Amino acid sequence: MNEFELIARYFTRPARRAVLGVGDDCALIAPVAGMQLAISTDMLLEGRHFLPGADPEALGHKTLAVNLSDCAAVGALPRYALLAGALPEADPQWLEAFARGFFALADRHDVEVIGGDTTRGPRTFCVTIIGEVPVGRALLRSGAQPEDVVWISGEVGAARVGLAVMREEPGITPPATLREHALQAMHRPQPRVELGLALRGIASAAIDISDGLIGDLGHILERSHVGAEISMMQIPASDWLKSRATDPKTAAWAREFVMAGGDDYELCFTAPPALEARVLEAGRHAGVAVTPVGQITAAAGLVVRDDNGDILDLASIRAFDHFAESAAA
Amino acid sequence: MNEFELIARYFTRPARRAVLGVGDDCALIAPVAGMQLAISTDMLLEGRHFLPGADPEALGHKTLAVNLSDCAAVGALPRYALLAGALPEADPQWLEAFARGFFALADRHDVEVIGGDTTRGPRTFCVTIIGEVPVGRALLRSGAQPEDVVWISGEVGAARVGLAVMREEPGITPPATLREHALQAMHRPQPRVELGLALRGIASAAIDISDGLIGDLGHILERSHVGAEISMMQIPASDWLKSRATDPKTAAWAREFVMAGGDDYELCFTAPPALEARVLEAGRHAGVAVTPVGQITAAAGLVVRDDNGDILDLASIRAFDHFAESAAA
Repeated sequence: MNEFELIARYFTRPARRAVLGVGDDCALIAPVAGMQLAISTDMLLEGRHFLPGADPEALGHKTLAVNLSDCAAVGALPRYALLAGALPEADPQWLEAFARGFFALADRHDVEVIGGDTTRGPRTFCVTIIGEVPVGRALLRSGAQPEDVVWISGEVGAARVGLAVMREEPGITPPATLREHALQAMHRPQPRVELGLALRGIASAAIDISDGLIGDLGHILERSHVGAEISMMQIPASDWLKSRATDPKTAAWAREFVMAGGDDYELCFTAPPALEARVLEAGRHAGVAVTPVGQITAAAGLVVRDDNGDILDLASIRAFDHFAESAAA
Repeated sequence: MNEFELIARYFTRPARRAVLGVGDDCALIAPVAGMQLAISTDMLLEGRHFLPGADPEALGHKTLAVNLSDCAAVGALPRYALLAGALPEADPQWLEAFARGFFALADRHDVEVIGGDTTRGPRTFCVTIIGEVPVGRALLRSGAQPEDVVWISGEVGAARVGLAVMREEPGITPPATLREHALQAMHRPQPRVELGLALRGIASAAIDISDGLIGDLGHILERSHVGAEISMMQIPASDWLKSRATDPKTAAWAREFVMAGGDDYELCFTAPPALEARVLEAGRHAGVAVTPVGQITAAAGLVVRDDNGDILDLASIRAFDHFAESAAA
């Protein structure tokens, strides 16, 4: 089977919304009046973003999920995706499972795959996602104002626990039910697309937590020229992880998991205090918990208070090295 | 220097045309009324699309050029690019040279870089290009009609000669002036953007020759449900290569170079015979030669006649394996 047959078999679907889909030099799309397009690209590499031997169906899901999450963070409705991939060999079974995971999520969000590129090489995927957002309604990192409440969707740290379970990191032994939940969080993150849409006109700023809460909230603060004070104990995480974060014997890694654990793809966003009820309603509408964790301050810098109300030394939390790992602009 | 500083230093320019450029979860663009967007993505891997040790400035140029070529092939005006890359190390000198090559070409075509992603890993680049084309005016692979003339821009085979020179393939010894020209063709392909724009309303079908003439013309024939008959001796190639293609001692490789050599990024297009003068005028306007090489036939299949008028056995021309190499959908 040559490459064109592979693409045709697993990744080509008839164009629906697009004017022209896979199969020409470019795809063609017709913009919708009154809409801006939100566009992002992410590259995933084996050994860095996923482990060799990763389940291909889960990987197909995650490859698209991390991109949908970028649309969610700006309140855009994802519409089109392009998928470029390198594969070490043309394994139809592997490709079929990857495509199943990818398209199951694409179909759930009514996202159309309009282009691609396939190459032999170290297993690598690069997705470009294109979403629609009404003019002037995108959620940006730059809109946070002093007094705004800082919110987080779902819970954080779970994907990092999943990674610890996968790697069998010593001393990190969550209960069986949490293990399963954490592995799911790591392998099958749920992009908060509905929440992003529901937060249009409510959130003043938003970002997805791909690289860890401290770093990603830091981007909001930097772009908004503000600071924030948040409470570690208010950060939504599993009871097990929270209890480890207050136990001096385990606090070092547990606090890192909560505050700098990446790969959760929850939303961190800000909203004026007067809009609390609307934020909670947006969360209910989207079917995901939303938790206030602190507030934006006029003074620059991020202050995190621990369970005793003391200010945490964030420098002691392992900084996520964004070149050593990865980051989307 | 961490990744964000690297991106900021080399790849961030202020947004001009875009509503929002690099620096948020998504870029935002405002579509122009009456325009469709043409979108394509291409992945380039070290060892497959470029050699280890490749000059970073030339590589920056080529990484964007192959994507601009996809816009050219549909007659779209390239406007925005997203660049995802993996690099084995954060070498500022290397990055600076790559960025210089990339942006020199981007600036020449007034293309704005609106997003990116950087990761540590085997050297890999993935560009997504977004162009504009008036509604209904895109050049597609599917529009060729019987009697249409088949045209080729510039010359083909040069990049393949360049590769042979690079690899020091035995018995392939072009004269010094041609060596330089061939290496330039391989390292610094010139995307035919102006020609693509000038061919709107003239060409009935078009494709860029990235994988070799036979294969790429074959895509037009397949999508248009037609055939073609072309003459090997009319195919624009260097005199040196043409003379090798008629010498029995060298015909095997020389014919392959002319008809299946990839990486030229010229345009192969079709147009009604009555529009010959307009095609020639489009070529003059774009500053590139355009050469008729044969015509479209109602009968399926591609016929190539050699210098004696005999039908060439195309099966003897090495087929370009698109999975072993790469191909854009």
